[in-house]
Amino acid sequence: MEVIRKNFKEALPLVAASVKKADFLVIDTEFTGIINGRDVSMFDTPEEYYKCTQKGSSEFLLIQFGLCAFHWNHKEKHYMNDAYNFYLFPRGSPGPDRMFMCQSSSLDFLASQGFDFNKLIKDGISYMTVPIECKLRENLTERQKTYSKGKDSIKVPDEHKAYVEDICNQVHQFLEEGQLDEMEIDKCNSFVRLLLFQELRARFKDKILVETKILENKNRLLNVKRVKSQDDLKNHDALKKEREWEDFEDAVGFSKVARMISESEKLVVGHNMLLDVMHTLNHFFQPLPAEYTQFKEFTHCMFPHILDTKYMSSLPPFKDKVNSSILKHLLATLSAAPFSLPKVVSDEGRGYSQLHEKHHEAGYDAYVTGLCFLAMHSHLANMRGDDTTRFLSITSPLIKPFLNKVFLSRTAHQDSPFINLAGPEPLPPRDHVFHLAFPREWQRNEITQLFSPFGPITVQFIDDTSAFVALARREQATSVSKALAKHSKITLTSYYKYKKINDTPSSKTATKTAEVANDCKKTEKTPVRTSALQINATGTTPVNKVIIPEKVPRDRSNSVSPITPPRKRTFSTSSGGFEVNELESPTKKLKDASETKKRIDEKIIDRFDSEAKPACVTVFKDDDCWD
Amino acid sequence: MEVIRKNFKEALPLVAASVKKADFLVIDTEFTGIINGRDVSMFDTPEEYYKCTQKGSSEFLLIQFGLCAFHWNHKEKHYMNDAYNFYLFPRGSPGPDRMFMCQSSSLDFLASQGFDFNKLIKDGISYMTVPIECKLRENLTERQKTYSKGKDSIKVPDEHKAYVEDICNQVHQFLEEGQLDEMEIDKCNSFVRLLLFQELRARFKDKILVETKILENKNRLLNVKRVKSQDDLKNHDALKKEREWEDFEDAVGFSKVARMISESEKLVVGHNMLLDVMHTLNHFFQPLPAEYTQFKEFTHCMFPHILDTKYMSSLPPFKDKVNSSILKHLLATLSAAPFSLPKVVSDEGRGYSQLHEKHHEAGYDAYVTGLCFLAMHSHLANMRGDDTTRFLSITSPLIKPFLNKVFLSRTAHQDSPFINLAGPEPLPPRDHVFHLAFPREWQRNEITQLFSPFGPITVQFIDDTSAFVALARREQATSVSKALAKHSKITLTSYYKYKKINDTPSSKTATKTAEVANDCKKTEKTPVRTSALQINATGTTPVNKVIIPEKVPRDRSNSVSPITPPRKRTFSTSSGGFEVNELESPTKKLKDASETKKRIDEKIIDRFDSEAKPACVTVFKDDDCWD
Repeated sequence: MEVIRKNFKEALPLVAASVKKADFLVIDTEFTGIINGRDVSMFDTPEEYYKCTQKGSSEFLLIQFGLCAFHWNHKEKHYMNDAYNFYLFPRGSPGPDRMFMCQSSSLDFLASQGFDFNKLIKDGISYMTVPIECKLRENLTERQKTYSKGKDSIKVPDEHKAYVEDICNQVHQFLEEGQLDEMEIDKCNSFVRLLLFQELRARFKDKILVETKILENKNRLLNVKRVKSQDDLKNHDALKKEREWEDFEDAVGFSKVARMISESEKLVVGHNMLLDVMHTLNHFFQPLPAEYTQFKEFTHCMFPHILDTKYMSSLPPFKDKVNSSILKHLLATLSAAPFSLPKVVSDEGRGYSQLHEKHHEAGYDAYVTGLCFLAMHSHLANMRGDDTTRFLSITSPLIKPFLNKVFLSRTAHQDSPFINLAGPEPLPPRDHVFHLAFPREWQRNEITQLFSPFGPITVQFIDDTSAFVALARREQATSVSKALAKHSKITLTSYYKYKKINDTPSSKTATKTAEVANDCKKTEKTPVRTSALQINATGTTPVNKVIIPEKVPRDRSNSVSPITPPRKRTFSTSSGGFEVNELESPTKKLKDASETKKRIDEKIIDRFDSEAKPACVTVFKDDDCWD
Repeated sequence: MEVIRKNFKEALPLVAASVKKADFLVIDTEFTGIINGRDVSMFDTPEEYYKCTQKGSSEFLLIQFGLCAFHWNHKEKHYMNDAYNFYLFPRGSPGPDRMFMCQSSSLDFLASQGFDFNKLIKDGISYMTVPIECKLRENLTERQKTYSKGKDSIKVPDEHKAYVEDICNQVHQFLEEGQLDEMEIDKCNSFVRLLLFQELRARFKDKILVETKILENKNRLLNVKRVKSQDDLKNHDALKKEREWEDFEDAVGFSKVARMISESEKLVVGHNMLLDVMHTLNHFFQPLPAEYTQFKEFTHCMFPHILDTKYMSSLPPFKDKVNSSILKHLLATLSAAPFSLPKVVSDEGRGYSQLHEKHHEAGYDAYVTGLCFLAMHSHLANMRGDDTTRFLSITSPLIKPFLNKVFLSRTAHQDSPFINLAGPEPLPPRDHVFHLAFPREWQRNEITQLFSPFGPITVQFIDDTSAFVALARREQATSVSKALAKHSKITLTSYYKYKKINDTPSSKTATKTAEVANDCKKTEKTPVRTSALQINATGTTPVNKVIIPEKVPRDRSNSVSPITPPRKRTFSTSSGGFEVNELESPTKKLKDASETKKRIDEKIIDRFDSEAKPACVTVFKDDDCWD
């Protein structure tokens, strides 16, 4: 079901009913861009990954939200889907006038998938965060109190006096003649309207009501209405206030749906869902914290049960059978033996079937993600000898290994770190990774040749003269360091050392402190990560945090670490919803990558065809499908 | 004529011909937003106004460009118009992937005017600045040199070996059977495509050509072509290079039109054209300089003859006869006595007539602006006893008072400063303006009352507890200072003093230097302006500039100051076009306001109806029509 602002009010109770009866919910979103600034790296830790994504993506807008609620048909023993595809556009007034970023390649991609931008801007549903909502609610309440008070006046400038007099005479005549109930005053700019508003109110007081009227084409008129009784005046004020509150509720708009999902505490499924979750929190709840641990707590508090089908498909028993976990490919894989898709139907006009084939429409992608989840869930159940296709409970042991773990795109070839929202997560070692500075004329060939005695490598270019190089034969790390230490044309630095020097948030002032902090812990074998160096809200006092990676098993299937329950913070106030944390001012949050919504592997072609170095940095950025 | 990317190549020679035969050109543009950050103030000097606008608007995108060329029909003795309405969207590849800002109210307004965003994103013409063009041209040249070189290889990971082998066998079979000329490989992600690309090239060398093919829906396939002769291979490389250059020229796109207009050196007319000019330079030429004088020089160099009809209509003999200079209203005023619109027609499908009524379509607004210019020009000619309706020369004394002066919206009630691109301009005095800090509970009424002994005032709110207050009776300034100096609830500061303290670009580090600099010049009667305090490109060394306002006559009609020819800088290189100045890295440039394209006076309603203080700051921001 497509939901736009015209049918939002009617859809809201339907959505509530769907959420209520659902066994689980699936979400998917579309935004105006993916990443601004530095891209994620395949060597990032989960924390680095989050910070990079938070910094690089928060200024983009969420423009489509797909919600697919799966509920069980007891009689027919299969799932039904209620699907909603919401177009979202937070237009100004009474909400705030939003400034937001777009990425041209993202819009280009969405357009090629049939995304309707005219519908978006004309008919999109508004939304706002909780802090903004509270602020505006307060403002409106305050403003309405002043309605009964008198207004003061602005002097009419000489050049407008004649015109104002003329209009006043016209209104006088309109009142005298008493034939019409309304008259309109056109063709004046806002200043003249202001003058007229004031003069007419002063001269004709309780005899007329003066209002600005906005036409369909945004032209403005002054509308003058004859007052027939004193009740007219009273009703007018009451009606006006009521209308303002209605408009305000419309502006809060979609946020209500997001909060409904949160309050249900049901399992929320997504595919490659980090960005979906981040944008959902950032746009409908409150700005994301810069701190990684705060983000995990906040997310876990708002959505206590999350499952990422991309993460699920990347673990045994699916890993070896899934050639590509791009959503469309995953669906194809799960449609054939040894898997099978469950029967899922919908009431007429209320959900999708596979025939719709609306890939990259958020609602459809949510539906497909739900199918994938059910197929994988059934497969696991079958392996245990169960033949139910129903997902019964969030405490089911079948989903436990996957619960609250979020996939991190593009890190797969480097031990696939993931985010564990419900506890700490392992940090994959980076002892086999080096930062390499090389001559400008070098291409990939020269680098491969340099490392050839040590086996195959993975190269991630940073710019024209530097790259990260990872060894496939990790045990060669020490030999590499020794052998290339004195090489005349290149400089090789261990990854940890390089990060230590470079990962200071505001490099110049903070570097020194960072070095001091790091020196305390420096050993070659127990690498110290300094990426958590932070600047407080005023940007002046660096706070040091030194995190030492735990020793972790390399096999991801073993990585289900013991869950430490996070400190639950209270997000609730009398005004409903939850407490507004005074986080730092909304900082720029940026980038990530997920192949389904987030395209732009266009430039990979340059690489296939030319393998040219100048394009490599961009190339890495764009090939979302490296997993 | 609507121009999109499909017909751009065909339109280009038509545009060139129109520009060549035109007596004058009219432009108008639409963008994705107006101002981000601080708004312009009615008390701003031209320099402050520019800086504010530059800072607040440069991240928005120019999405529609209207060009209307007026040429004289000698036989029929009237003007013809050739009009072009270009949709512009700089999509990534081979141009850069653009990150840009949008303002939700601006998009909302454009949508209400029928702007087609789907057409914009699907069919918009690309563009880029000269520095970007040079860089990319160089990159492509370099990259093409590597095509003949060998590529190195990436190790095929174990999990992909079987698949890669399978595809290689299929290709082998395809070659053996020899029935088909092409085969396609689907359903693999970009990494697998990369592996296949490499393996197929290595194993089948000169027997096949492998290319990535992008479908309409952005899906990617590997396309394998049988090589029939060695010429196939050679042609393939040559064709590929040629195609790349074609794509590159498409990506330079509309910039060619903008540069064509510049090179013509013809009179370029616009209405309220500051933002049009700024965006044109910033998007098609090079990032705007932060320095005001550099901006003036740069603009004057690129467009040596500019005329702003909004400025023209704000001076005698038009001033008193034009009630509102909103373009649509101006057209209406100039359609009736004592004015008259000239006869302007067009060849079928090549221009507009007034029947089109497509207000806010850039092409139509350019056409209407041209009509207004001609009507005012004829009026001036008539006053001198000429009855020609033709605009003959940029040296005409009729337009001299208006030439190269740009209107500054919303400053009209404070002496209307303007930008003189061809020389210095007067600085209106601000001795009658004060900064007022007041208690949070105060509304406008309290302020009016406070100043009531000194006559009417103009209030511009800054926030909940401060405002600028301007006296209508300017001679009262000293009395006000004295009378309110000891007031217990408020703090009154002279405007100059306030600006001196607050207009330091990066307040903390620069304040001290500013104070030192200002102390040298400080007197009460010769106010010192410190807004020109600047930080150089590295952001470290403040450079001081102290500008003392000239004594200027208050009547704007006398403000045609002697023109000092600016130092012309050479903007030309061998590569055609002009030299790329190494300006500071593209900084954020922001805001301005013009009523025609730039709406959002929505919130003015709050003010009419409620006169509420909390809304006042926004209100001032939004009422573009204060003139």
